[in-house]
Amino acid sequence: MAEYSSILLEKAVDELAKLPGIGKKTALRLALHLLGEEKMVTDSLSQSLLNMRNNIVLCKKCYNISDSEHCSICSNPKRDNELLCVVADMRDVMAIERTGSFNGVYHVLGGVIDPINGISPNDLRIKELVDRSINEDIREIILALPATIEGDTTNYYIFKMLQHFQGQITAIAKGIAVGDALEFADEVTLGRSIANRMPFNR
Amino acid sequence: MAEYSSILLEKAVDELAKLPGIGKKTALRLALHLLGEEKMVTDSLSQSLLNMRNNIVLCKKCYNISDSEHCSICSNPKRDNELLCVVADMRDVMAIERTGSFNGVYHVLGGVIDPINGISPNDLRIKELVDRSINEDIREIILALPATIEGDTTNYYIFKMLQHFQGQITAIAKGIAVGDALEFADEVTLGRSIANRMPFNR
Repeated sequence: MAEYSSILLEKAVDELAKLPGIGKKTALRLALHLLGEEKMVTDSLSQSLLNMRNNIVLCKKCYNISDSEHCSICSNPKRDNELLCVVADMRDVMAIERTGSFNGVYHVLGGVIDPINGISPNDLRIKELVDRSINEDIREIILALPATIEGDTTNYYIFKMLQHFQGQITAIAKGIAVGDALEFADEVTLGRSIANRMPFNR
Repeated sequence: MAEYSSILLEKAVDELAKLPGIGKKTALRLALHLLGEEKMVTDSLSQSLLNMRNNIVLCKKCYNISDSEHCSICSNPKRDNELLCVVADMRDVMAIERTGSFNGVYHVLGGVIDPINGISPNDLRIKELVDRSINEDIREIILALPATIEGDTTNYYIFKMLQHFQGQITAIAKGIAVGDALEFADEVTLGRSIANRMPFNR
């Protein structure tokens, strides 16, 4: 209190410093920035955070974050509903959307199977995926989970749960990143990219 | 909108990204963090920012930020009201308070004279300082402005404006930082610290 000379400022700094990656010094800089700007700036920041937190829901179909019952991807008639991409997290939806090379729909699991951190299949939306594979008219399910042991475990678990599924099940390609030199790729990645070599398109 | 699948999220990210030093990626991370926490966390963050911005005022005496008409320093009877420290910014008050080695009161100018950036003496609270030097019972005025050309200019201007002042006018010592090796100090600082050498206290 002596340091800040204002309890209101101290409280704001404390709250900002609770955000990940924001320390006390950064929090103070942000608070003083807001004090130097018009009141409108703080109003509009606070309102947008409250609006987001209080009104965002999960899409009832794909469990991506959404402003309404069905998200903008699921309710877009131009998207291919028969092509379903399974991802761990809503951040992965954003990453794939940014590529602009996918026109299907998504299923967000909410994580991957991770026994060490206590995440079992029941904590994920795998049952919901199985339901969709039965009730919806799906041609192909693409598994786009992280290229980690947990991701691979989850891929395998889902594959087993989808044994009834008549369509195709695929997984995203693992290999060396576009633009990377071979000498800098790790052995496992390079090994995989040789094992999974593809016919050369001339 | 396609990228975020939620306009509410996009708006929150945009607002967060207006803060200094916060880019779009960090803003997204902060927004998703808030989405993953209890609603209470966002409520309390937003409320503290609004409370701060709408209720903080400037102390009518020293122009430091304050929760009431007179700040906690000016209204503290244990502080030495006859010892006045002139600083450029409220951040400097905090910095000096953290040292725990000053028990006087402050006068916050609101900047330093900086013609290049269009800050003239009239934009600062120099007239208010002169008024205080006349109306209050002050023993010593300490000039604690930045050790820059602008700070020195402002020191000199204030010194001229305080010619009527009967008390002592001092400036904070400039020299090599405590803990610093001489070889790493810049020439101007080292030169000053030799010119301003002091009797050795045994």
